[in-house]
Order: sequence, then C-alpha cells, then structure tokens
Amino acid sequence: MFEGLFVPRELAERLSDEACVERMLDVERALSRAEARAGVIPEAEAIHIDLDVDRLVAEGRAAGNPVEPLVRALHAQAESAHLGATSQDIIDTALVLVARDAFDVFELDGLAAACARLADEHRNTVIAARTLLQQAVPTTFGLKAAGWLVAILQAGSLVTSCCKELAAELGGAAGTLAALGDRGPEVLRLFAEELSLPEPVVPWHTNRVRFAQLGSALAILAGICAKIGLDVQLLSQTEIAEVREAVGGASSTMPHKRNPVGSTRARACARHAQAAASVLFGSLEQEHERAAGAWHAEWKALRDALAYSGGAVAAAREVLDGLEVDPQRMRANIADDTLSEARRLGVDAQSPEDYLGSATAFVDRALELYRAS
Amino acid sequence: MFEGLFVPRELAERLSDEACVERMLDVERALSRAEARAGVIPEAEAIHIDLDVDRLVAEGRAAGNPVEPLVRALHAQAESAHLGATSQDIIDTALVLVARDAFDVFELDGLAAACARLADEHRNTVIAARTLLQQAVPTTFGLKAAGWLVAILQAGSLVTSCCKELAAELGGAAGTLAALGDRGPEVLRLFAEELSLPEPVVPWHTNRVRFAQLGSALAILAGICAKIGLDVQLLSQTEIAEVREAVGGASSTMPHKRNPVGSTRARACARHAQAAASVLFGSLEQEHERAAGAWHAEWKALRDALAYSGGAVAAAREVLDGLEVDPQRMRANIADDTLSEARRLGVDAQSPEDYLGSATAFVDRALELYRAS
Amino acid sequence: MFEGLFVPRELAERLSDEACVERMLDVERALSRAEARAGVIPEAEAIHIDLDVDRLVAEGRAAGNPVEPLVRALHAQAESAHLGATSQDIIDTALVLVARDAFDVFELDGLAAACARLADEHRNTVIAARTLLQQAVPTTFGLKAAGWLVAILQAGSLVTSCCKELAAELGGAAGTLAALGDRGPEVLRLFAEELSLPEPVVPWHTNRVRFAQLGSALAILAGICAKIGLDVQLLSQTEIAEVREAVGGASSTMPHKRNPVGSTRARACARHAQAAASVLFGSLEQEHERAAGAWHAEWKALRDALAYSGGAVAAAREVLDGLEVDPQRMRANIADDTLSEARRLGVDAQSPEDYLGSATAFVDRALELYRAS
Amino acid sequence: MFEGLFVPRELAERLSDEACVERMLDVERALSRAEARAGVIPEAEAIHIDLDVDRLVAEGRAAGNPVEPLVRALHAQAESAHLGATSQDIIDTALVLVARDAFDVFELDGLAAACARLADEHRNTVIAARTLLQQAVPTTFGLKAAGWLVAILQAGSLVTSCCKELAAELGGAAGTLAALGDRGPEVLRLFAEELSLPEPVVPWHTNRVRFAQLGSALAILAGICAKIGLDVQLLSQTEIAEVREAVGGASSTMPHKRNPVGSTRARACARHAQAAASVLFGSLEQEHERAAGAWHAEWKALRDALAYSGGAVAAAREVLDGLEVDPQRMRANIADDTLSEARRLGVDAQSPEDYLGSATAFVDRALELYRAS
Repeated sequence: MFEGLFVPRELAERLSDEACVERMLDVERALSRAEARAGVIPEAEAIHIDLDVDRLVAEGRAAGNPVEPLVRALHAQAESAHLGATSQDIIDTALVLVARDAFDVFELDGLAAACARLADEHRNTVIAARTLLQQAVPTTFGLKAAGWLVAILQAGSLVTSCCKELAAELGGAAGTLAALGDRGPEVLRLFAEELSLPEPVVPWHTNRVRFAQLGSALAILAGICAKIGLDVQLLSQTEIAEVREAVGGASSTMPHKRNPVGSTRARACARHAQAAASVLFGSLEQEHERAAGAWHAEWKALRDALAYSGGAVAAAREVLDGLEVDPQRMRANIADDTLSEARRLGVDAQSPEDYLGSATAFVDRALELYRAS
Repeated sequence: MFEGLFVPRELAERLSDEACVERMLDVERALSRAEARAGVIPEAEAIHIDLDVDRLVAEGRAAGNPVEPLVRALHAQAESAHLGATSQDIIDTALVLVARDAFDVFELDGLAAACARLADEHRNTVIAARTLLQQAVPTTFGLKAAGWLVAILQAGSLVTSCCKELAAELGGAAGTLAALGDRGPEVLRLFAEELSLPEPVVPWHTNRVRFAQLGSALAILAGICAKIGLDVQLLSQTEIAEVREAVGGASSTMPHKRNPVGSTRARACARHAQAAASVLFGSLEQEHERAAGAWHAEWKALRDALAYSGGAVAAAREVLDGLEVDPQRMRANIADDTLSEARRLGVDAQSPEDYLGSATAFVDRALELYRAS
Repeated sequence: MFEGLFVPRELAERLSDEACVERMLDVERALSRAEARAGVIPEAEAIHIDLDVDRLVAEGRAAGNPVEPLVRALHAQAESAHLGATSQDIIDTALVLVARDAFDVFELDGLAAACARLADEHRNTVIAARTLLQQAVPTTFGLKAAGWLVAILQAGSLVTSCCKELAAELGGAAGTLAALGDRGPEVLRLFAEELSLPEPVVPWHTNRVRFAQLGSALAILAGICAKIGLDVQLLSQTEIAEVREAVGGASSTMPHKRNPVGSTRARACARHAQAAASVLFGSLEQEHERAAGAWHAEWKALRDALAYSGGAVAAAREVLDGLEVDPQRMRANIADDTLSEARRLGVDAQSPEDYLGSATAFVDRALELYRAS
Repeated sequence: MFEGLFVPRELAERLSDEACVERMLDVERALSRAEARAGVIPEAEAIHIDLDVDRLVAEGRAAGNPVEPLVRALHAQAESAHLGATSQDIIDTALVLVARDAFDVFELDGLAAACARLADEHRNTVIAARTLLQQAVPTTFGLKAAGWLVAILQAGSLVTSCCKELAAELGGAAGTLAALGDRGPEVLRLFAEELSLPEPVVPWHTNRVRFAQLGSALAILAGICAKIGLDVQLLSQTEIAEVREAVGGASSTMPHKRNPVGSTRARACARHAQAAASVLFGSLEQEHERAAGAWHAEWKALRDALAYSGGAVAAAREVLDGLEVDPQRMRANIADDTLSEARRLGVDAQSPEDYLGSATAFVDRALELYRAS
C-alpha cells in the first residue's frame, strides 16, 4: 500500500508489467535474429506489437503465465517467432533484462559519494561511539560514515557481480532445445550475444541460483541502508540531536516536529527486500524441469527485491545528501564517564581528540577503497 | 509482477490505494460524528473530498505517510475534522476496515463447500494413501478431501476470529488522547461504535499483536490452500492421473498438455502470504509510541498477506470446483504391495475396500463439523 | 551457539531429546492403556525402558526418525505395544506434550505482574512520549508499561489458547486407523482421554494448522518481549538514562559500563522464535498422508520457537523485575518544545502533568484487564 | 530436536560451544603474538586454559556474552592478553574460524562427484522431462544430473568465495583500536596474518555483509540439495519408480516400504539453513558501533546455517552415491503423448532417442565445467 511513498517512480516504471512485456518482446526479437543468423529460420520477421497488459493477464490466467497469449499474438504476425523456445525462456530472460534495467537506476553511486563526503569532511569530528546503545569511548563521525561507505561498497559490488552473472535462458520445452536439432548450443550462443548476456553452461529452468543470489545481494544492500537509517534516527533523537534530516517529516498533529522520514523509509523498505529474498530461497526447490509454483512465486519476489532495495538506496541517499550534522553537539554529548573510561584504559586523554586511536587511518583506508572502486 | 494472474480483481480493488483513501475518509467522518455526539465539536461537518491518490503520495512523501496531505485537504473543508487524532489513528483504522472488506470477498465458503462435496461424494472411492511419496495402505479420496475440509475450517475460523479482534485505533499524538481532555475514553467508545469495530483497552499504536495475528492466520490459510494444490498436482502427474484440473493450463510449446495451473497459483500465492506474515512478525518490535519503519512496513505486508491468501483461496476453490476425479484410475493404481501390506498388518483384506478402517467414520465427523460451522 | 545464554535451563531440559523420548514412551503407554480399555488388546503391558538417545538417533537415521528403533526396543518388552500406530502418531503427540510442558515454565505471569506493577506505580510519572524517536507530547511511564501489559496479556492468551487446541494424534499408517478395524474412533477418544488432550475430528498427519498456529503465537509473544526490550534499551541510552537494568552487563573492555543485557537477550531471542515460525508456515504444505521433509523440519522449528520465545519472556521478566526507574530524569528530559507543542494543541498546559489526557484512565483499563485475566 | 538425525557428527562437533571456545583462545593467542611482533607487548605469554563451557555460559549471562569470563580467566594467567580488544573482536574472529572449519568438512566434492558420475553414466538414458509435474518431452537422466551438477558447482563456489572474504575482526572497544595508539593498523595486519585471514579495510563490528553473504550462500547451497532431494523423491514414487535410494527408510508400521529418507533429510535441512539466513539478513540493521540484539542473534543463525546446509549436502551426497537407477523403467514410463508431442513439434521422432536435441552437448558442457573446477 502506498508503494509510491517508498519506490522511486522511474524504478517502479522499469519494474512494471508493461516494461516486462516490452522486454519479453525484445527477447522474442533477439531469438528470431539469433535463429536467422544460425540459419534455423530464413529471416527474423519484424515484431511490432502493442500488447495490452490487462488482456495478456486475463488470457494468460488459464495458462498460468502471460507468454502463452503473447505468443499467439506474435504468431499472427511472425510465423517463425518463438521457435524452439518455451514460455519460461521468455519470462526468465525478460526478468534478467528487467533486473539489469532496474539496477541501472539505483542511486548507488550517489549514496556512496554521500558516505564518502561525510567520512572525509568529518574525519576530525569527535562523537561518542555507542555500544549496546551506551556511550563507550570517543570515535569520529567520519569513521562512522566510513563504516557505512565500506558496507555500501561491499554490498553494491555484490549486486553488480550478481547482475553480471544473470545469463540468458533458452532451453525449449524441457531444457534440451529439442526443436532446434543439433543447433541448440549455437542458437543459445547467438541469442545470448544478441542480448549482451552471458551464456549459461546448461539451461537453468530449475537451477535458480542466479535469482536467489541476486535477491540475497539486494537484501544485503537494503539491510545496509537500514543500518544507515537506524544510525541516523538514533543520532536524531530529541535528546541527542547530533544530526537531522534536511527534509524532515511533517506530522499531521505536530507540524513542527522534524521526523527522520527518509531513514524510516529506508528501514521499512529493507524488510520487504529481505522478505522477498526469503521467497527466492524457498524457490530454489523446484520440481524436475519446470516448477509448479516455486517459479511463479519468483516473479513478484524478484520485483519486490528490486523495488524495495532500490527504494532503500534512494531513501538512504536522500537522507545522507541532506544530512545536517552538528559537530558541537556531538562533542558536547560525550559524557564524562566516556573520557574517564579512556583514561582507565591507559590513554592519557585530556580531551576526546586524544583518544581516537586509528580512527583517521581507517577513514583513509575506506576512502582509498572508494576511490579505487 | 503480473499480479493480475494471482489476485482476483475484486480483491485487488478492495486493497487498492484508492480504497484505502476512501476508508481513511470514512474514518475521519466517523471521528467527527463521534466527537459531535460527545459534544467535543458542535457538529460533524460534511466531508466530500475527491482525492487524487498520486497527489497524496507525492505530497505525503515528505511526511512519510499519506495522511498529512489528506488532513490539509480536509481542514480546508471541515475545520473541526481530525480533532485529537494522529495520522496513525487514521491509517490503522482504515487498514482495519480494508482488511475486513478484503476478507469479505475471500471465496472461503465456496472452498469449504467444494471440499465437503468431494468428501461426501468420494467417501467410498478407494485411493492409495501415500506417505513420504510412497504408497502406504488404501484410504479413500473422501478422507483426503475431508482432511482438506477440516484444515480449511480451522484456518478460516482463525482468520475470522482475528478479523473480529481488529479494533478501532484512536490515541492521538502519543496514545493519551491529550487534545480531548478527559473525554478521550468516551470519544474512543463512540468512534468504535460508529465504525462497528471493537474498542481497544488502550490505544495500540505500538502494540501490533492484532496485525501480526491476522497475518499469521492468513499465512496459515494460504498454506492449507498450498497443501491442497500440492496434493492435486501430485495426483495429476502423468503417471498417476487420478485427478485433473478442469481448466488445464495451456502451454506455449505444448498446447495439448494439461497443466495444474490453479494449483500452481495457489502454491505460488502461499509463499507471498507467508513472507508477508514474517514481515508482520518483525514489525512487532516497535519503538516507544510510534515506530520509525516497522509500522510503515506493515502497510504493504498486510496488503500482500490479504491479496495473496485471498488469491490462494480463489485458486484452490477454482481447482476443486472443477476437479475431474477418476475413481477407476485411483483403484487401479493401488499397487499389489499396498494390499499385501494390509494383510501383513492382520487385516483379512481381499480388496482395498476391506482395509479402510475408520476412513468413513472420519469423513462423517468432518462433514458434521462442516455442517455445524 | 551459546544457547545457554539465552534459554533458561529448565526450559531447555523440557525441550531436550531426552525429554522428548520420555514423552514418546508416555504416549506409547497411553496408547496401550487406551487399547486395553477398548478391548483391542488384552491388557496394557508395562513399559520400562531406559533408552539411550544417541543410539536412537544413530539407529533412527536410516528410518529418518527416532521412533522406528524405539518401537523395536518396545516390542522386545511389550508385544502388544504401538498397535495400530505409526511413527508420526508417537512423535506428534509427544511434541504436543513437550510443547505444553515447556510452556508451563514460561515466566509469563511474572512478566505480566512486572508490567502491572510498573503501570500502577508509575501512573503519575510523566515521561516524554516519543514518535519516530522524536519527543512528541508528555505521557506517563505508567501508560507505557500498561501498553506492554496489554500486549503481553493478548499474546499470552494467544499461546494459551493454541496450547489448548493441541490435540492427540492417532491415525495409524495413513490416517484411517486401519489396523484397529472399526474401533478406531473409540481408541482415539480413549487415547486422548488418557493424555488429557483434545480429540481431533480427524487425524492431522498433514494438517499442520495447530503447530503453525502455536509457532505464530510464540513468535508474537517473543516479538512483544522484543518491543519491551527495545523500549528499555532506548530509555537506557547514556543521553536519556531514564531507566536502567539492575543486572547490567559487564563489558570485557569497559567494566563500568551498564549494558542493557537482558533487553538484548530478549531482542535476540525474538528473531529466532520468528524464524522458527516461518519454518512452520512453510511446513503447512505437506504431501498427501505424510510429508517428505516438511514434517521433519517442524521438530527443530517447534523446539526453537518454544526455547527462544521462552527465553525472550524470561529475559523481559528479568529486565522489568529489576528495572531502576528515574522519574526525575524522565521529567527533566521533557523538552520545552514538547510542552509548547501541547499548548499549540489548545491545552492550557503549564506543566507536563496538565497534558496527560486519558493516560491514567487507560492505565486503569489495562490493570482491570490484568486483574480479570 | 533430534538434530543428530540431520547434522553429521563431525560437523556438529566443529560447531559446538567447545569448539568455539577453543577458537576464541586461538584468537587471543594470535592477538598476543601479533602484539608482541608489533612491540606493543613485550612477549606473547603462554595461554593454557581448560575452560568449562557451562561455567562460561553461566558467568557470561550477566555480561551477555561468554568472553567476559573468558578474559577474566585469561588475565589470571597472562596479564598482557586481550590488550586493546573487545569481546566482539574475539567472538567474531572465532566465528570466522569456526565457519571455515565447518565448511571444510562439507561433503561438497563428494556430492559434485556423484552428480558428475550420474551425468556421465546416464548421458544416453532417456527419461521423460516433466514440467509442472506433467510429462513434457523426452530428455536424459544424464542431463538432469548435469543440471544438479552445475547448480552445486555454482552454489559451492559461492560459499567458497564467501569463506575467503571472512576477515579477521579487531577494532577494540569501538572500532578505533584506541588502546593501541597509532599502532592499530599494524597490529590488525599482523593479527590477520597470524590467523591466515584477510585483513578488513575497517573493523566490521556493525558491518555484517560478510556473515549475511555467507548465510545466503549456505542457504542457496542447501536449497539446491533440496531440489535434488525433491527430484529423487518424485522419481522414487511408487507409480514412477525410476530411481530409489539405496538405504531406504524403514517404517515402524510398514517395514518393507522404501522411503526416500536421505532426500527427506536434505529437504528438511534446507528449510533451517534458509530460516537462519533470514535471521542474518535481519541482523544487518545494527545500532551504531555494537548492536544490542542483532549481533547476538547471529551466533545461532550462523551456526544453524552451517550445520543444516552441511547436513543437506551430506544427505544429498548419500542419496546420490547410493542411488539405484532403473533406465528400463525410465524409458517405459515415457507416455505415448510425450512422443507424439515431439512429432508435432516437427521432429521425426520414432523413439525418444530421436528427440533429445542438445541434451548430450549440455551434459558435456557441464562435465567440462566440473573438470575445470
């Protein structure tokens, strides 16, 4: 409900049924071109179809997927289309394209840049480190941001590498490409080439490692955004007030309150992305050569994982881009005990700055990783 | 993706943003009437607003919820509206109404009736019982259907009782109904009465037992539909062929194949309902008087739990309503070992019929429960 | 790992393999007595077996469950034992007994009493209500505790009613009680009576509503404990310091720090109970008359749900029993904005006490519910 | 419950509390050596402690973790031990070592070898491909096994690479290594070197990408084992009987039945590994510099993920190693429709062998990947 509050519009459009149908048609066109190049069909007939998604869904209901009516419409126009393919080839490959399209508009670079900027600007800004929500010893806000940065870089790199492994799917009725005789592997190679996708070793109709892996990476990325959101919320508490979000949330009862709304969105989004990843785990157990339910559950799960991890990234980026940081307050909040604790540990600490250990060195290491990424 | 394949249209409409906004306005109206009756405001001003959901979402983004712009629009028309309430009061109570509306169109009676009909008609239809997917001893198809029936009755009764416990929410800014002075409890009582909802003992802004409980019940109901779907799929296997779905799924490559498409839908739906319930579990941990993320995550979770458990029920009902049962095949499939097993256990079984034990008695008990429900 | 940190010893013992085997023997004994009473066997032979769990597990591995070797041992002693039953009858009924035993040592009454005491004692203790982690308006600490109380009463009552619905299981090889001829229902009735358990309408070998429902209720109960833990942690923050746990956690590096360790345990436990409930949801989808994996997954899931929800309750109870509350600090922390906010809303609030609305009335309602429970 | 049925003994031992405490001591020793090498302490004092896990747990309860009593015991013997470290450094690094130890005894090579053997031996064994549990067109049992093989190789390689990324953890009280002055990075480098672990860019106390990633990879691996188990179970059905497990499960009621017990175990295990991975996702959201619950929940989750994915691998391997394959039955089961379907698609298929398309080519590609792995 009210998905528009959480998922950026452009991302939502790239994940819409309409976008998916467009990609299915792209996949059918790529198949025709590949088969024409392989000499399996004389030429790739033009495919110009304007398909009504509601109709596809209504007619696809009996078949259990939207490809069957799509292929019927296709055949009316291009007799040689879809040769040797099965519905799942079209849907799986379209989902791969949709996933890559969607990830392209994740605001990941912006989020990493915002973390890096905060890490750099606040390398000398002392703040109380808090463990189990109790002040521990001083650290710097720069190191906190550097921690976010490293996590975002790791998680982003995970998603990127998962996206790269998303291969084309072409196996025909049951993974043997039987209708293509002995030209199966060649058509598969050309098909993948047409779509600039990796070629799988064997069709992956019921080997769902790739989707589960992508879902996991997205869940992890979203989880890191939630961690950032949680830290920002905790630092924004009335009694702490060390940071606040620029675009504070208005309240219908309390108009002057500044709610950490972006952080709230990030945290809410992460839960959906993680639940979607769980569905993808459960969908690894698929029957024989095509699953009767587990595959069908992946569609929404993959879509939700992308929509809500993208939403989490956008929210976290918005939060950090506009974050108002109050170094005076950070320093003032450091409790006397926190300093005496430092002294107890053998550091001759007159001020928090004397007790930062390797904080700055770690910030530098994080920024180095960022620049190399 | 392609949610239209899984979620019945009417159910989807009752779960739409538009429906939710309509219910929010109903809640605001009920509040005004309650406050007028309590003498807190002179009279309930009329509320006739046609709100554009896209605008609410766009404007609600900064506030983190769609109520803030709604209240602004409301106040332009009815100055006394929303008095003493907070956004969460409106959304929570609207969600309660939406949930009840949605459950009203679950095809639960139809599903139970289909189970009962099969149990009754096939009380004497012998079939191999299968444990760990191996034939065990004979049973009846009627008892199998009776098992489905009892489970559906249990799960349906769970959901029904959870729906009944969904109370009105009214706590104001922080659960004290402060702006209503000492008339809080009275307004709360009248507000609940106006909406024909139970009155809570205290406001439940961060006590989410009700929603988690409803989500669980829906997940369980969907899980039973998946169990029915799985049994039907297993019995429909080419090599077993004891039942088949009436509206078989066409295949884009293999047009004459009869896929168990409804069962597939039921099983796919259940996974989403269960994932949504997990999100609701996670959302029990809420901060202080209003959560910063956990509450916001409930909206989609509750919606998905309703949409997909309703989808599972609709699919299971469609499957059983049109199920083609082949008693001859059921009998013929019983392996010789299955009968000799019976004899080994001391039953003088010449035919499967001699070995049904209390199958019929159990069918009768299930039907009795059904008739009493 | 280090489960002993989280799960109370007595609870762990009631959930041990040894306890489960004991209960299996109880179930076998009850079956013999029931069959003797029904005249199915001449008399209930005595069963005095000391079974080595390691051996049962080692020998049960090939069978996939520990009952097969147990029955072999049993038959060496009591020829008439286990007549008509199947492994699952014994395990399911033993799990029912184990679940009830385990719930008996949940410290639920103590937890509710601690909430009630705090609600009562602090009915006039003002504290800032916090929404989205921002101070909103004043409330009382008593109302906060009353909110916990109501949630615990609801969740506790859920678990209690689920436990009451846990029925005896007796269906024989495939749910027909075939080996008992027409005396199945009578034996089932007597068997349930012997164990003081409800009698099911039909055997529930693959109808897992009861276990999923119990798992859900436990997950909800644990979630409420996590909510209490989170509130305590937030109030315990160095900068807020309105409460602290009596038995603070020592730190290996910072010995004088007072960590909210009990709250931490409660929150950690809840996650495991909720994950276990998810497994139980997934296990609703079971094949035919005995599942090939889903059933076997329930054993650990049920055990974990009980162990960790019980752990969460124990931790929350320990936290609240010893909670040090600082009313002065609570009052002093209320920000000026929080009061001016009150005035803006039309309340002539000179002090926080003027702005408590129905807080006390709600506390009274909660305590009334508690006393009636 | 009855974990011994599911988790191999050696794996369980490597995941025991005792093993974890041993690894904690290894970590303390490595720290002392590193600090001696860096000149931070004069020399690494010998650490010879025999710690009673029950006592550690009992005494660690107040601190919320078992390191605090361990460090006390340590200091009685070696004054310079633990310098600069915090409990989490010791536990996290010990968990890393435990995870690697545990993965070392996964029977992954054996499982891959069993898949490869079946793929190779049965490259010409025709079998009906089944989609949505309906016969589709012929394929080979070799291609089915090749599909398993590729999935296992992918998943295994995921886990392996996650294990390689498990870095040493050393951050001190709050991630700054404050007590080590400016020698933090050097000690960190030497500490990692002593343990042959990668050095992290910054301490990762609340950056849990590594553990979430490992949990995901294990969940995926277990999911593939469940897929293998499900396929074997479906092929083992009485009515299909194309394969059967060598060590069939005895039944307490039906001793001659051959239950697919290993497959059942694999499927049950996968659910636990996946639930554990979900907990690890949820634990990504950690507060500030040390989490108050989310971290503590990881211990059991990581342990369960390792125990049950390892259990799934062991079970799948056992199943495939002893799998009895019946090529005659596979061929005989192919329905006439399946062949006529082939003809309809334009293949001049007189026999199933004429309709295998690229099945053999795909088997070769899978085996090539296997040999290169």
